[in-house]
Amino acid sequence: MILTVTLNTALDVTYRVRELTPHASHRVTEVTERPGGKGLNVARVLAALGHEATITGFAGGATGRELQERLADTTRVVDALVPIAGSTRRTVAVVDAQGDATQLNEPGPAITPAEWAAFQEAYEDLLGSASAVALCGSLPPGVPVGAYAGLIRTARSANVPVLLDTSGEPLRRGVAARPDLVKPNAEELAELTGSHEPSRATRDARRRGAHTVVASLGAEGLLAHTAEGHWRARPPRRVHGNPTGAGDSAVAGLLSGLVERLPWPERLARAVALSAATVLAPAAGEFDRRVYEELVEQVTVVGEATAA
Amino acid sequence: MILTVTLNTALDVTYRVRELTPHASHRVTEVTERPGGKGLNVARVLAALGHEATITGFAGGATGRELQERLADTTRVVDALVPIAGSTRRTVAVVDAQGDATQLNEPGPAITPAEWAAFQEAYEDLLGSASAVALCGSLPPGVPVGAYAGLIRTARSANVPVLLDTSGEPLRRGVAARPDLVKPNAEELAELTGSHEPSRATRDARRRGAHTVVASLGAEGLLAHTAEGHWRARPPRRVHGNPTGAGDSAVAGLLSGLVERLPWPERLARAVALSAATVLAPAAGEFDRRVYEELVEQVTVVGEATAA
Repeated sequence: MILTVTLNTALDVTYRVRELTPHASHRVTEVTERPGGKGLNVARVLAALGHEATITGFAGGATGRELQERLADTTRVVDALVPIAGSTRRTVAVVDAQGDATQLNEPGPAITPAEWAAFQEAYEDLLGSASAVALCGSLPPGVPVGAYAGLIRTARSANVPVLLDTSGEPLRRGVAARPDLVKPNAEELAELTGSHEPSRATRDARRRGAHTVVASLGAEGLLAHTAEGHWRARPPRRVHGNPTGAGDSAVAGLLSGLVERLPWPERLARAVALSAATVLAPAAGEFDRRVYEELVEQVTVVGEATAA
Repeated sequence: MILTVTLNTALDVTYRVRELTPHASHRVTEVTERPGGKGLNVARVLAALGHEATITGFAGGATGRELQERLADTTRVVDALVPIAGSTRRTVAVVDAQGDATQLNEPGPAITPAEWAAFQEAYEDLLGSASAVALCGSLPPGVPVGAYAGLIRTARSANVPVLLDTSGEPLRRGVAARPDLVKPNAEELAELTGSHEPSRATRDARRRGAHTVVASLGAEGLLAHTAEGHWRARPPRRVHGNPTGAGDSAVAGLLSGLVERLPWPERLARAVALSAATVLAPAAGEFDRRVYEELVEQVTVVGEATAA
C-alpha cells in the first residue's frame, strides 16, 4: 500500500450562499461536508487510480468522529488515524453564486507529547507494509517544527521512498533530511530558495538535500529536476474551475508513477493530467476521469535524460 | 418545571477573525461552540433565575450529539430533545476585531412525519408536569406551518399557560389559536398586523386571538396589552453590546414572572432588565447579574390597570 500522512486533518465544510456580505445575516442554501487535509485528498486519488492507500495522522473530538465515519465509506482507503484528546479542526469554504470561495480555517488541535510519540510509533509500524509514503500539509500546534525531518529519516531507514509536500520552515527542515521527492509550488519554492526563477530555484532545492524536486507551476504544469534528467510538462490547454486539490492530485500522480516504476515523462504526464482533471471536478480528492484520460495523451513533456 | 420548545435547535459556533474579506482565506483565531436556539437561551436564563427548565425539540446527527453533550453540563436544565435521523444545524457567527458579526445559518434538518408525531406525543407527556410552556423560534422543514397552533391547543387543553415567540406565518396561525401570551418584536408585529404604530399593532394582535401581547421595542423596552391593563416599561439607560438573545431573556423574564404570579409591572421590569443585562453579556442565554439587579430597580413602568 501507499501511506499518506496528514498531521493536520480537517473536516472540509462547504456553505453555499447567494452573496457573502460582511456584517449581514446569510441563509446557507446547501451544506456539504467531507474528510479533508492534503494527504486524504492524495489517498482518494490514489484509490481512484486503483492503488491501496492507508491514511494516518490525528483525529479527535466530535469532528474527528464525523471525519472517520465519512472515511469508512471510501473504498481502497484504510483509516489508520491516531486518536487524540483534542478536536479535529473544520475548514469552512463559503461559496457564492459566482463560485468564488471565502475560506475560514479553524486552528488545529494541540497535540500532546504523548500523542506525538504514539503517532511516531504507529508510523514506523505502517512503513513496514508501505511501498511509498507522502508527508502532506501543515503541522498542528504541539508537533515540533522539525517533525517532517524525523519522519523522513525514519522512512529512509525503512527503505521506503518518501515524498514531502509542505511549506515554510517544516519544508526547509524536511528538505535538509534528504527526502526522495519534494513537490513545492512556485511560492513555496521561492520562500525556500529566495529565487523567483523556477528552474534556478528547483536546482537550488536539490542542492539543499531533496533527491528530486518537482515544482508545480499551476496552469503552466510541472518542472522536474531529478538524478535521471530534467523535464518540463505542460497541459495541452488551460482549464477553468476550482484549483483546490490540484496539487494533491499531482502528488498522487507522482507517487503512483513511482511505485509503478513509470519513466519520468510518463509520471509527469500523469501528474499534470490529474491536476487539470481535478480543477474540473467539484472537490479536492476527485477528478474528471474522462478529461484525465483525454489529457494524459496530450501533455507535452520536453527535457532530457542525464547521460548514464 | 417550565417547558421550552425549540423545534429548530442549533449548535451556535463563533469564529473570531481579524477582518472578514470576501474571497480571501482567513485564519480563525478562536472557536467557541454552544447549544443554541431561542428556547435553549430562554431555559438557561430561567435556570439562572432559579427555575427548573426542561427543553424539548429535535436533535440528531453528529451536531445534535455535540449539542446534547454540552447541554448535559447545564444545571437546572433537563434535556428532553426528541431524536431525529437528520442532523441538527449549526449557525456560524464570524466576529471581527471590531466585534461586528457576519452570520451564516445552515438550514434545519428535514423532520419526517413519524418524528413530528413522536415529538407531539413527548410534548403532551411533558405538559403534565409543566407550570408554563414557551414555543420559540422558526420551524424546520417538514414541520407543518400550523404546528404552533396545534401545540397551543394542546397546552390549553392541559391547562398550561403558553407563550409564543415566533414570526411570519407560524406566528399568524399561532395567534389565531389563542395563546396566553405572544412576544413579537416591532418588525414581527408590523408583519402580523400591517401597522407600524406599536400601540395600535399590539391592540390589533390581541384582537386576532392572543390573550396578552408584549411587544419588544429593542432599546425602547416593552409595550404590554393584557386583560388586566396596559403598560409601557423602559430601561433607565441605553446599553451597548450584543443584542443577540435579548428577546429570549425577555421571554424568560415574562415566564418566570407568570409562574411566580408577579403583578404585571414587576414582570415587565424583570423582562426589561434581563434584556438589557443580556446585551452586556458575551452570549445569548447569559446576562450580567450585577447589571440586572441594578436595572430591575430602575425600570420605569407607566400604564394603567383595567377597572375590575
